[in-house]
Amino acid sequence: MADDLRGEVRGRVERFQEALGARGLDAAALVYAMDVFYFSGTRQNGMLWVPAAGAPVLFVRKSLARAKGEAALADVRPFPASGDLAAALGQAKRIGLAFDVTPAAQLEWYQKQLPGRSFADVSGPIRDIRSVKSAHELSLMRHGAKQMVAAMAEVPSFLRAGMREVDVAAELELRLRRLGNEGSPILRAFNMELFTGLVVSGDAAGEPGFFDGPVTGRGLSAARPVGPSTRVVERDEPVIVDYTATFDGYTIDMTRVFVCGSLRPELERGMEAALAIQQMVARRLVPGEVPQAIWDEASAMAEAAGLGQHFMGPPGDQARFVGHGVGLELDELPVLAPGFEVPLVAGQVVAVEPKFVFPGLGAVGVENTWVVAAGGGEKLTVLADGAVRV
Amino acid sequence: MADDLRGEVRGRVERFQEALGARGLDAAALVYAMDVFYFSGTRQNGMLWVPAAGAPVLFVRKSLARAKGEAALADVRPFPASGDLAAALGQAKRIGLAFDVTPAAQLEWYQKQLPGRSFADVSGPIRDIRSVKSAHELSLMRHGAKQMVAAMAEVPSFLRAGMREVDVAAELELRLRRLGNEGSPILRAFNMELFTGLVVSGDAAGEPGFFDGPVTGRGLSAARPVGPSTRVVERDEPVIVDYTATFDGYTIDMTRVFVCGSLRPELERGMEAALAIQQMVARRLVPGEVPQAIWDEASAMAEAAGLGQHFMGPPGDQARFVGHGVGLELDELPVLAPGFEVPLVAGQVVAVEPKFVFPGLGAVGVENTWVVAAGGGEKLTVLADGAVRV
Repeated sequence: MADDLRGEVRGRVERFQEALGARGLDAAALVYAMDVFYFSGTRQNGMLWVPAAGAPVLFVRKSLARAKGEAALADVRPFPASGDLAAALGQAKRIGLAFDVTPAAQLEWYQKQLPGRSFADVSGPIRDIRSVKSAHELSLMRHGAKQMVAAMAEVPSFLRAGMREVDVAAELELRLRRLGNEGSPILRAFNMELFTGLVVSGDAAGEPGFFDGPVTGRGLSAARPVGPSTRVVERDEPVIVDYTATFDGYTIDMTRVFVCGSLRPELERGMEAALAIQQMVARRLVPGEVPQAIWDEASAMAEAAGLGQHFMGPPGDQARFVGHGVGLELDELPVLAPGFEVPLVAGQVVAVEPKFVFPGLGAVGVENTWVVAAGGGEKLTVLADGAVRV
Repeated sequence: MADDLRGEVRGRVERFQEALGARGLDAAALVYAMDVFYFSGTRQNGMLWVPAAGAPVLFVRKSLARAKGEAALADVRPFPASGDLAAALGQAKRIGLAFDVTPAAQLEWYQKQLPGRSFADVSGPIRDIRSVKSAHELSLMRHGAKQMVAAMAEVPSFLRAGMREVDVAAELELRLRRLGNEGSPILRAFNMELFTGLVVSGDAAGEPGFFDGPVTGRGLSAARPVGPSTRVVERDEPVIVDYTATFDGYTIDMTRVFVCGSLRPELERGMEAALAIQQMVARRLVPGEVPQAIWDEASAMAEAAGLGQHFMGPPGDQARFVGHGVGLELDELPVLAPGFEVPLVAGQVVAVEPKFVFPGLGAVGVENTWVVAAGGGEKLTVLADGAVRV
């Protein structure tokens, strides 16, 4: 594995080095596990030192032996003893750091260890580079999507009216775990948290919450106010199942709606509108399309369907995006949202999730994980999109 | 719930205000979700402003409605528009922030919004205050421990030789979820990550790793190299099941060892030594005892048993602690480890986990969650401690 990845990791590092050079930085110190993993092949605990030119060095705190086995780069060393770091890093004066995910205490520590150097945020170029997936990454995500689909396809076998949301979640999580789900999705955004997904039924979908998405759910307590609750699923109400699963580090994001019985007409109209928006977005997931323009069209379609107030959240508490990048983290670039004007690039992976929330009734919609491609989005999560009657 | 908590939250805030005053700080800005939850009763996204004297104010980004319903303090407002923050916060010049968990980008943003103010790290007093649990918190943890025990007690009903570690994990996670487990434990330490727990069998327990504990496990990939793997459990080898579960925000930590068949004599000796160390530590979990002294005695007992090289990790990769605080986070104070000289306080909750790792054979030991009390540790996770033959 490490051998196959060497060329790939070299390419990733080179792209990052170009970005460092363009910003007038001499080097970057990457400390956040998923960044270290992407640019080295291992997420053991340490600091990946990337000079603007020359070979990167991985300084490992724990475990050095495991990092040496996993890393796809040559220079893996123990983390220098306190006081020796400056000498180990040479003369670099302007150093990049990912300010979005690096705690202030870490920055302060590096400032103290490396007096006379300055630090600048490089989270932007890291996120840009990571947004475009290689053939290797796409093959991992195709495999992961198949597992996600296999588990989602089993929901009708266990979902019944009278079950609590959390029991439905438990059954799905059991199946995902057996299929190799590694754990919770990693969210780069500060203070965002999700266990693995949401099972939210009926009026619980209208509950507002901290989570930056169309549906939060009640959760099980005020300490973890997101996801399934002990609410009992009833007949003839939508159960929105928005789940992630992670395989080889890559997260897949997928939503389907289930109903024990049938949906009311306004919810059926919401489903239809969501599927039409998905079709439009999928067609526009081509290189050169502008995320903001896709959002604008999605938003206009929701308005035209008379459902603008329900699009991407309950009235007054609506999220303003219709898709987000996904990969090693759940919240990657690009975001199909206002303000995102950098055109799409082939190989970006986007979870597209048009949803409508009707307070008192529930949420409907769909979510699939797609690859941006010349002929339009390639759907990784291949499964029928409509509401499933159970 | 919010009403019952008002007095409690007022007391927590007052203790923190004393610490701010003692440090010459005018106020603190708490932004990290678990700190906001502890000092306000809600973890909706926002900033809790705690002046050194006077009433705290919770400024909420999302969801304001939910924060108002959950918060156990009176003053809950929308987050000020950009540019209005300085005016909303008044004249405080020296402001505390938890540097250990607050991203550098957040600190930078506050520095820009509040020119002319200085910022200081207050993670120390926050962690000190949070380490001592109230009667209310202890009652939540007693309830959570009962659920954890109920799930752990079921392991013999499904564990069989021939199962993969991850399938054993899936079964335990299913049961924990049905009992109300809210999600993954929150780790305050940077770059630490755990899904819910570890099922690690035989020689996989000797695998070193980034995780700061005696056993890491192989995990399912280099991206998430911790926890259960696809290794198949064999007869006559120890299966160490180290799990967390979280209820009402509070995490319980517990380990038991299972074996399909019987343990080799050296592993039996390791179990005996672990149980003796646990007994010693439990006796010393009284107010006034010094964590470092407890570590010293634990370490000496391991040496005296001829097992010093195996204590708390494989030879050469040993963790240097025998217990850690647990509560809203998995890695709270106190730590029973070298360098921790502040005496124990009644009401602190500590997960005590003496373990021995034998490369090629496996890990044995035990872990329970205890309350520091005048008569010695109160065991919350009440279940037989010995290795369980399946």
